[in-house]
Amino acid sequence: MALYIKAVLEYDGTRYLGFQIQSHGPTIQGEVELALYKLTGQRVRIKAAGRTDAGVHSEGQVIAFRVEWKHPLEDLHRALNALLPKDIAVKELSLAPDGFHPRFSAVSREYRYTILNTPWPSPLRGRFAYHFPGALDLEAMKEATSYLIGEHDFASFGSPTKGENTVRRVYRADWRRDGDFLHFEIEANAFLKRMVRLMVGTLLRVGQGKIPPEEVKAILEARDISLSGPAVPACGLCLVRVNYPEGGGN
Amino acid sequence: MALYIKAVLEYDGTRYLGFQIQSHGPTIQGEVELALYKLTGQRVRIKAAGRTDAGVHSEGQVIAFRVEWKHPLEDLHRALNALLPKDIAVKELSLAPDGFHPRFSAVSREYRYTILNTPWPSPLRGRFAYHFPGALDLEAMKEATSYLIGEHDFASFGSPTKGENTVRRVYRADWRRDGDFLHFEIEANAFLKRMVRLMVGTLLRVGQGKIPPEEVKAILEARDISLSGPAVPACGLCLVRVNYPEGGGN
Repeated sequence: MALYIKAVLEYDGTRYLGFQIQSHGPTIQGEVELALYKLTGQRVRIKAAGRTDAGVHSEGQVIAFRVEWKHPLEDLHRALNALLPKDIAVKELSLAPDGFHPRFSAVSREYRYTILNTPWPSPLRGRFAYHFPGALDLEAMKEATSYLIGEHDFASFGSPTKGENTVRRVYRADWRRDGDFLHFEIEANAFLKRMVRLMVGTLLRVGQGKIPPEEVKAILEARDISLSGPAVPACGLCLVRVNYPEGGGN
Repeated sequence: MALYIKAVLEYDGTRYLGFQIQSHGPTIQGEVELALYKLTGQRVRIKAAGRTDAGVHSEGQVIAFRVEWKHPLEDLHRALNALLPKDIAVKELSLAPDGFHPRFSAVSREYRYTILNTPWPSPLRGRFAYHFPGALDLEAMKEATSYLIGEHDFASFGSPTKGENTVRRVYRADWRRDGDFLHFEIEANAFLKRMVRLMVGTLLRVGQGKIPPEEVKAILEARDISLSGPAVPACGLCLVRVNYPEGGGN
């Protein structure tokens, strides 16, 4: 009997072309499906909450898959971690609830974008951050961020997936300083492609005093992607968590 | 006129064969000398406080070199960081005091070995740590560590460099817990090759209850390298700082 499994993945996306399988290089999906094949001999297809882009990291990507497995789930969890490359790990693994779909059951996603705001780059502290050496006006960035909260047409901040509109609901978005790091934390019902990176790129222009905070409101209302950004690099972006309704898979 | 420069290097040693230049792969020394050559056209030879092994990281490696440079030192610093690979950075750069030698002027070195003590590996938190999932008795490890402090013949814990004896003076050594991480912090006048990794490997045997804490004293006194270890992996080791006498280059 096939089991229906839900798992949470942590990964360092640096050397991957993104989540979704590609023919021309390594992907998270490809590595996980390969580990499942090595372990079970079955060609398992996994579904994910979101297709993170090349270079983007995860603390909380959620996947689901069906697999024939007769041993304890703990053994499946341990064996997958033993077979996966060091930059991908299964954090949690359990039976998925009936009807669970990692993408369609999700009610919100949380992302974090991290900036290392120091004069010099740091190989040990900066792997999962974007190094920005210049001065930044955090209060101005926070003010600008407030315009992004709520339900809006975010056409200025990303491209829709085929067949979708560009309206999204941002539940919360703010900046937090932690020593030399600045973290942009955002939760929304769903995200457009490159949405967080275009937002952060725009907010950095505010932080540098190149545009006033209210300009972000004008950019949002213009629904013109040429006005936002530039998108900041993928290395600072992390999918933190995917939320599901009570009893619906969490 | 050639300037005599002292610099502090931070690096992620993961993809390097170690500090010292090698013909068969990338090294820290090789990358820094290449950056200096690209910048100045001069074949600069750098000297270092210590030759970190393959895969070992640094927050405080100290180097010195002579270079012809007519611009502000700040420009040399910035240009080197722009030319170096992302996993190597110059943290500090200044004129070296007269007679300064990064290795021979040093009075002590500090290393840290980091263990990630969680059931599952963590790609985001574990890059600079050794993942050890089992239970560890930290109090027993601390007791065993106390036997390593002071001046001893550490022949059981490392190999001497050619022409040196195996007596070293350990000024301090202890374990510190920080959430899921265990840090072994040690300062000594100098270290034998693989000394920290053999110590930690031995102390982990104590932490697992395989040998009692006093056994570490017996291993030390036996002066027999076959009794210690096994050496833990390089990925958890970091050269934290090199100390110099007041006015002698710090």
